[in-house]
Amino acid sequence: MSKKDGFKNGGTGAFPAVILAAGKGSRMKAGIPKPLIKLLGLTLLERALLTCREAGISEFYVVVGYKKREVLRHVKELMKKYELNIKVVENPEWKKGNGTSVLAVSKQLKSPFFLLMCDHVFDPEIVEKFVETARFSNTCLLSVDKKIDRVVDLEEATKVKMKDGTIISIGKELKDFDAVDMGLFFCQPCIFDAIKKSVEKGDASLIGGIKILAEKRKIKGIEAEGKFWIDADTKKNLKIAEKLLLSDLIKDEDGYISRYINRKISTKISRVLCNFNITPNAITLISFILSIFAAFLFIHTQYIYILLGGIITQVASIIDGCDGEIARLKFQSSPFGAWLDTVLDRYADVLITISITYACWLIYENVIVWIIGIAAITGFILTSYMKKEYVLRYNKNWPDGIMDKLSKRDLRLFGIFVGAILFYPLEAIAILAIISHISIIWGFLREKWLVNHR
Amino acid sequence: MSKKDGFKNGGTGAFPAVILAAGKGSRMKAGIPKPLIKLLGLTLLERALLTCREAGISEFYVVVGYKKREVLRHVKELMKKYELNIKVVENPEWKKGNGTSVLAVSKQLKSPFFLLMCDHVFDPEIVEKFVETARFSNTCLLSVDKKIDRVVDLEEATKVKMKDGTIISIGKELKDFDAVDMGLFFCQPCIFDAIKKSVEKGDASLIGGIKILAEKRKIKGIEAEGKFWIDADTKKNLKIAEKLLLSDLIKDEDGYISRYINRKISTKISRVLCNFNITPNAITLISFILSIFAAFLFIHTQYIYILLGGIITQVASIIDGCDGEIARLKFQSSPFGAWLDTVLDRYADVLITISITYACWLIYENVIVWIIGIAAITGFILTSYMKKEYVLRYNKNWPDGIMDKLSKRDLRLFGIFVGAILFYPLEAIAILAIISHISIIWGFLREKWLVNHR
Repeated sequence: MSKKDGFKNGGTGAFPAVILAAGKGSRMKAGIPKPLIKLLGLTLLERALLTCREAGISEFYVVVGYKKREVLRHVKELMKKYELNIKVVENPEWKKGNGTSVLAVSKQLKSPFFLLMCDHVFDPEIVEKFVETARFSNTCLLSVDKKIDRVVDLEEATKVKMKDGTIISIGKELKDFDAVDMGLFFCQPCIFDAIKKSVEKGDASLIGGIKILAEKRKIKGIEAEGKFWIDADTKKNLKIAEKLLLSDLIKDEDGYISRYINRKISTKISRVLCNFNITPNAITLISFILSIFAAFLFIHTQYIYILLGGIITQVASIIDGCDGEIARLKFQSSPFGAWLDTVLDRYADVLITISITYACWLIYENVIVWIIGIAAITGFILTSYMKKEYVLRYNKNWPDGIMDKLSKRDLRLFGIFVGAILFYPLEAIAILAIISHISIIWGFLREKWLVNHR
Repeated sequence: MSKKDGFKNGGTGAFPAVILAAGKGSRMKAGIPKPLIKLLGLTLLERALLTCREAGISEFYVVVGYKKREVLRHVKELMKKYELNIKVVENPEWKKGNGTSVLAVSKQLKSPFFLLMCDHVFDPEIVEKFVETARFSNTCLLSVDKKIDRVVDLEEATKVKMKDGTIISIGKELKDFDAVDMGLFFCQPCIFDAIKKSVEKGDASLIGGIKILAEKRKIKGIEAEGKFWIDADTKKNLKIAEKLLLSDLIKDEDGYISRYINRKISTKISRVLCNFNITPNAITLISFILSIFAAFLFIHTQYIYILLGGIITQVASIIDGCDGEIARLKFQSSPFGAWLDTVLDRYADVLITISITYACWLIYENVIVWIIGIAAITGFILTSYMKKEYVLRYNKNWPDGIMDKLSKRDLRLFGIFVGAILFYPLEAIAILAIISHISIIWGFLREKWLVNHR
């Protein structure tokens, strides 16, 4: 939030982004123009625009050429859907090379600008960090990847040779290189002259212009910070891009069950769901309704109901991962969604636990059952509560440890699921209650111990 | 936190503070030297040092004169107790005027420095903001109060006449003035020459030196930001200082019961307790133990136990205010203390509610009692939980409304107290449960409504 606010006050984020979407994409061999090809629910152009917007860019130039009417129609849809400020620039000479697409904006653009290809897929963090770095730069910049062994399709990639951060040569056929061009630029207006010179020499490609800048030592290479990027210009690479985006959904703070079971299933569900017009908040509600249904089943005392309740609890737990996944895949994250999801999760846990407690009370008719139920509910909520409070008071992240992983929701619901299968639901919540309260006490002791031994 | 980190990297906070503690304080008419006079558990010198430390200052010069051995002994105690970096400077000429006390540090100090009198009591925010402002200044600064009607003891105060932010004249007898000197300075080394000139003219006071700076337009007046300050140089003013410090303990976010009942009592208790060596965390634990005791009483079904439980609940609620109050009065706030306090409050609420539920279940033997109990516990914790989560997700304060004031802990415990007196404890927690859950739902609806109508 604060970062974007910063941009509003005139950081580099105030500079526009030029997105090249004029090429035919002949390597793709698809019937439709490349910018319109779908990847996990978004077209390549849509993803490029939203990635830039997330990095704080709010003004766009999209250069069209091949099948321009189709692309134009799509751009209009996107402008309406996301309320984006996009200017469409036609490049009738697109066949000559993508340098002409950059030249097409030269009349309209007098300020520095970001430049990227619509078919490059980035971990949004890469673009964000690049925009941040560019904020303080008055030269041309190119985002480069020095981890060459992770580059997909190295043969087709444009290689870069650097010296002290400055690019000294660039080209596909470069034998001696130490990085790879990622197709993400920060350009000063001098780029136009460089491309014009290259065109005069007979090379109408963008890289032709960059070569001239490199000869003059006028472009720097900025090492990418972030997890992945890919030039999705073939069907095979598009598949890899999908895989990279999906595997990026696994979070460091995921619990054990989440990491090794739930995410494997939920990302597969998200991969399908993201092609439909279903919002993350709707998925949050579906997961919550499933939990209510599970709670309803747990009220009963027969095994078959308890078993079904357990299964639906675990299904709800898996679906609960999908809202966040879809939100990230489709750039639909919102504070409201995250907030609602977290609070509804607590309510879902409470309802399931009340039902199990009630059913067991019907069987045992012992007041201790209620005490166990209340201990579980309290533990389930407070284990999460104390972490939030820690973050607010210390203004830093909660130091995640094994005890925390054991008291997370994924393991809690999995425990109830296993307890239901074994027909020991009360014992399951009793054990989970103990784990939760121990993890709370442990959290305080650890902090106290750390404070006293710092 | 971040602010103080900033200072470590060489902000103005890196500049030292000079505290004048050499005078006799004849207006006070106390047997002990002025710096050693106690105000709400801290000596005036201690409070001045800790106020500066809270503003990010980490290096101190304390100038001693009158009864220097006693003051010196106290300074040594403070250095040990708070691990402060204090250099003591003796001023044998202290009787001549407080300008000589500033001159006494001239040999040791070549950098700019903050300067204050040990008997001035400030709302810590005033010093914090002043230090922040001084960070970017290369002239002398004086903190001034333009709200003249709030100045205590105006007759004795030093008046200031300003023009465009610069002080053009200063003195006690000034008839035409627009602000009052607060006794908080940011000095460049040129102050020493100014005081020397004033001494030559026969005026050995600090204000004499400031007059010379003002004549040369070399000192600016900075309007104070913060609630209060006072020159506590008489017994009467010391009493007023105590009152100001105590009334500052009432927080904007306090609930109705807290504001109109609890604080009135808790600040009186804190006023006494702050003279003893009792830590805020110890008070947190006392309040928690009282809650456990109340919970124990609530397990019974006879009126007398319930009544006592209710009274002790309300007492625990009042005492729960004291930990934060003592922490602020004695500069003992810590993230750990605030974190522990908040989580123990939740546990206390849960224990009291479980006990009431259990006792009522013994009477009614109806399962609905347990459902009410669980609804109450869930509501009590989640009403707080959802606000924390909101702050974390939106990165801004929770917009406090009437529904929030109604679902706060002060009113909750007061409701249980009243319910106990009337012998309707279950009805009380049922009503409180309903209020809590409605306030949670209302919180989401309000946000959703606000978001859609922004």
